[in-house]
Amino acid sequence: MTNSTKYFTDSHAAQITAWLNSHPHSNCVVIADKNTAVVCYPLFRQCLPHLQHTLYVMPAGEQHKNEETMMVLCHFLLDQGFDRNTLMIALGGGVVCDLTGFAASVFKRGVDCLYIPTSLMAMADAAIGGKTGINLGHYKNQLGSFIHPVAVWINPEFLTTLSERQMKNGWVEMIKHTLIDVANKDIFPEPYNWPPSKEEVLQKISASVAFKRQIVEEDFYEEGLRKILNFGHTIGHALESYALDHQQDLLHGEAVAAGMIYELSLSQQVFGWDKNLLMAWKNYLRNFSLNLDVLDIEKIMIYMRGDKKNMSGKLHFVLLEKIGQPIANVIIEEERIVALLGETMF
Amino acid sequence: MTNSTKYFTDSHAAQITAWLNSHPHSNCVVIADKNTAVVCYPLFRQCLPHLQHTLYVMPAGEQHKNEETMMVLCHFLLDQGFDRNTLMIALGGGVVCDLTGFAASVFKRGVDCLYIPTSLMAMADAAIGGKTGINLGHYKNQLGSFIHPVAVWINPEFLTTLSERQMKNGWVEMIKHTLIDVANKDIFPEPYNWPPSKEEVLQKISASVAFKRQIVEEDFYEEGLRKILNFGHTIGHALESYALDHQQDLLHGEAVAAGMIYELSLSQQVFGWDKNLLMAWKNYLRNFSLNLDVLDIEKIMIYMRGDKKNMSGKLHFVLLEKIGQPIANVIIEEERIVALLGETMF
Repeated sequence: MTNSTKYFTDSHAAQITAWLNSHPHSNCVVIADKNTAVVCYPLFRQCLPHLQHTLYVMPAGEQHKNEETMMVLCHFLLDQGFDRNTLMIALGGGVVCDLTGFAASVFKRGVDCLYIPTSLMAMADAAIGGKTGINLGHYKNQLGSFIHPVAVWINPEFLTTLSERQMKNGWVEMIKHTLIDVANKDIFPEPYNWPPSKEEVLQKISASVAFKRQIVEEDFYEEGLRKILNFGHTIGHALESYALDHQQDLLHGEAVAAGMIYELSLSQQVFGWDKNLLMAWKNYLRNFSLNLDVLDIEKIMIYMRGDKKNMSGKLHFVLLEKIGQPIANVIIEEERIVALLGETMF
Repeated sequence: MTNSTKYFTDSHAAQITAWLNSHPHSNCVVIADKNTAVVCYPLFRQCLPHLQHTLYVMPAGEQHKNEETMMVLCHFLLDQGFDRNTLMIALGGGVVCDLTGFAASVFKRGVDCLYIPTSLMAMADAAIGGKTGINLGHYKNQLGSFIHPVAVWINPEFLTTLSERQMKNGWVEMIKHTLIDVANKDIFPEPYNWPPSKEEVLQKISASVAFKRQIVEEDFYEEGLRKILNFGHTIGHALESYALDHQQDLLHGEAVAAGMIYELSLSQQVFGWDKNLLMAWKNYLRNFSLNLDVLDIEKIMIYMRGDKKNMSGKLHFVLLEKIGQPIANVIIEEERIVALLGETMF
């Protein structure tokens, strides 16, 4: 599928306003969650004071990224008479973007969708690349679509609404991009400073967007290269499912940070990493992860078996031969994972 | 999207067997409904005795083409461990193909789907063209996707399982193709004989498939030309929604036959048709329609307002300037439709 997504990065809304004016829609609905409706919607209104729209507020949090929230939204759209020429605008983090994008891709067999990511996580990752989805039970992103939004507007002003925890959450995916980027293969990047300066954040966002766009351009449907973006996610998603199932408060980035720690250990076992380098990155990643209260390993294995990358009943991982050299489709026996999870993570 | 769908029309299954062997999947699930599981599945097993698969039986009928049936199926797929490399096979009529195709397009963000249409309706129309979908409430096909199945296997042997009512149901879409086909613009085709011979049926199926494939090839996402396939469907879908809502037994083709009768009358009003020709086609179409017990016009208008073709609150129709010359996006005022529905249809 050709990627015709327009990207805007201006905080003054001049470009996005011009784009909206030149792409008229019969109506417009803005989807926010209970948080972004309060902390981001006022700035949105201020930036786009002339945009006629309806505001729809969905519940906040990963536990609501499910079929119920999705269907309530779709029935709302139908009941309110939104037609095929509607513009849906996702105003929020990864959950809002993923769910809105999925709804937009199937409502009336597809209406236009504009993402306005308000979290660092969404700006650097979730809003880029055209993957939409919802969870099924506690399994992550089991229903969804590959579809490009018509536009993405990254307005750094929204970063001022975030807590340190949310900033760390987004930072994790940018660390992942560093670890898997072939450009870093021979330079052995050091872990970055935390907290970063505002300039460092902006520079890292634009590097992440450029990197992810390039990967997605080459392999939109994740038939090959794109799989490397799942580094840290096989175990990360299973931890996230576990937390969802046990009402534990764990953000996606925190789960992926833990997932990368485990998968770096696996990489070390399989490809023989230098132990000092491994330790440096694991220590760094610990700043971004959270320990789960109790780890029921058998349950986590059940979730891992539901991972979308698996084939023919085998667990598939992305591991790093070294930094900048990710290898997809590495099959690891369950016993090895169970042993790894049984060790103390830290 | 490039159409890479393979079409097979052999009743002896040699070609489809070869294709299946050259396109291995990690597992396979056959979706039938309560009827086709009984009357079509034995022939399927006989044709493909070596295909390892799981049979899943969904409820039969348009009233089950909904989010509940869809979600129960998706949870089944997840619970049974079906992965991204699964082949889903739809074995049934339009409802089974539409719902299975939709589930396949979103499960794990998309798995391969093979259609084996078992009704004349599905062979000539529903299985061709890559539209999938489910109803929302009583509104038709409000959620769905545009996605090509990997293959369609039209095996005429399945026609022997159909009642006359089901044959008529499918014949209606083939009549529609005749009425909108530009190839018929100057030849004023006469209504065909009913019942047709077996050869006529086979010839009409292949003409319908070829015609629809050509339209879809030119305009997959229904941005222009493809809209003409909706002739008879604005009113037809509203009648179908009404019947669904009132537990009345009305097949899709029966609703579309009535829809075409009404929309031919509208065409006559707008474009001044020859009254004799109009009467001949209306008389012919009456053989394929069913009268609804009571017609609550206001309710039908409510459904019509939810039609996917509408824009900015106006009702959009496909009308025929003459046979073979369909015009899409004709806006008709509601008052005119109300008056038309108020007249006796026959």
